[in-house]
Amino acid sequence: MKLYTYYRSSASYRVRIALNLKALDYEAAYVHLSRNGGEQFAAAFSSLNPQQLVPVLEEGGITLTQSLAIIEYLDELFPALPLMPATASGRARVRELSLAIACDIHPLNNLRVLKYLSAELGVSAEQKNAWYRHWVGVGLTALEKRLAQDPATGRFCHGDQPSMADCCLVPQIYNAKRFDCDLSALPTVMAIFANCEAQDAFAQAYPERQPDAE
Amino acid sequence: MKLYTYYRSSASYRVRIALNLKALDYEAAYVHLSRNGGEQFAAAFSSLNPQQLVPVLEEGGITLTQSLAIIEYLDELFPALPLMPATASGRARVRELSLAIACDIHPLNNLRVLKYLSAELGVSAEQKNAWYRHWVGVGLTALEKRLAQDPATGRFCHGDQPSMADCCLVPQIYNAKRFDCDLSALPTVMAIFANCEAQDAFAQAYPERQPDAE
Repeated sequence: MKLYTYYRSSASYRVRIALNLKALDYEAAYVHLSRNGGEQFAAAFSSLNPQQLVPVLEEGGITLTQSLAIIEYLDELFPALPLMPATASGRARVRELSLAIACDIHPLNNLRVLKYLSAELGVSAEQKNAWYRHWVGVGLTALEKRLAQDPATGRFCHGDQPSMADCCLVPQIYNAKRFDCDLSALPTVMAIFANCEAQDAFAQAYPERQPDAE
Repeated sequence: MKLYTYYRSSASYRVRIALNLKALDYEAAYVHLSRNGGEQFAAAFSSLNPQQLVPVLEEGGITLTQSLAIIEYLDELFPALPLMPATASGRARVRELSLAIACDIHPLNNLRVLKYLSAELGVSAEQKNAWYRHWVGVGLTALEKRLAQDPATGRFCHGDQPSMADCCLVPQIYNAKRFDCDLSALPTVMAIFANCEAQDAFAQAYPERQPDAE
């Protein structure tokens, strides 16, 4: 199994956590998103993934992009140490929490979007940071309410075992910290984050611990 | 089953298509995203969905947000007329295609984002339209390559039966047309779009055919 990854890519970070939680070995191929004008734009990688984004997984004869599709695929292929609940309503809840991050927070603050704001719209660094914090704030405030008011929330996003939702939560909080977002009004989210960070599977996936970290 | 929906919401449109493809009856509750300062911000709706977004589905004793989570939940609860393939690799591919739209195109062009660009960053109408067309262009160009080069693509995104991916594709093309995006270099995408539009399940979900359309 081969994972095309970049240490600071939030979506790659999600998949690294999932692979660790499932105790799956993999070969890493490093794609540097800014060096050489962005290695994701090179011809060989572009033909692997026309979206020119990481992560990409090669496994079971297929080449797969999109972190949530990759995590669910791994969970179906290797059912041990499941990242998805056993019930339809549980799976729905984990997907909902994952998508609330993966669709409604992260894409707005992705590298290519921040670049567009600066280069094409000429926004200042201050405005760019305000944009970043705005979408993190809106998204995590809603997530806090959702998690705090639901008895299905446990030590992790869904009960007392890590799931795909935690694979999404931790990289989002890592990013929020990098951009000095205010996380003080998120007690449930941050308690779950702390419980995740205490686990080796999450710690080993940490960006600065990857071989391609700078 | 009750669906909170808005005729022009792309994510609601996805779920309406899915419900029609699966021949499931539902009660619609209309949430007008601009009237009265935005009905999604009202207290009752905010407590239903702290994200203050549509769609929301009430079914099987749970309240669920996020269109892709809703579609997969419906497909698990009601296996007849499936929207997900029978194999793990097929499901992975359908999720990948769906997420390429739901994460990497649509969130950047959502109503709340366009409002922020105008109100907070003071971008002109022309710049806002260029932003819109840029992300649609980048996203659909990659999707075209992905679909065109893969023999798993058929009359629809995955083979010859509509799937969750088509539920995502059609609302995205509807939006792209509203904003006069150039769709001329997307023969595979547009052939699939035409095949979808010819089906009653897609036609009945069309925004202007909804009771809350203006």
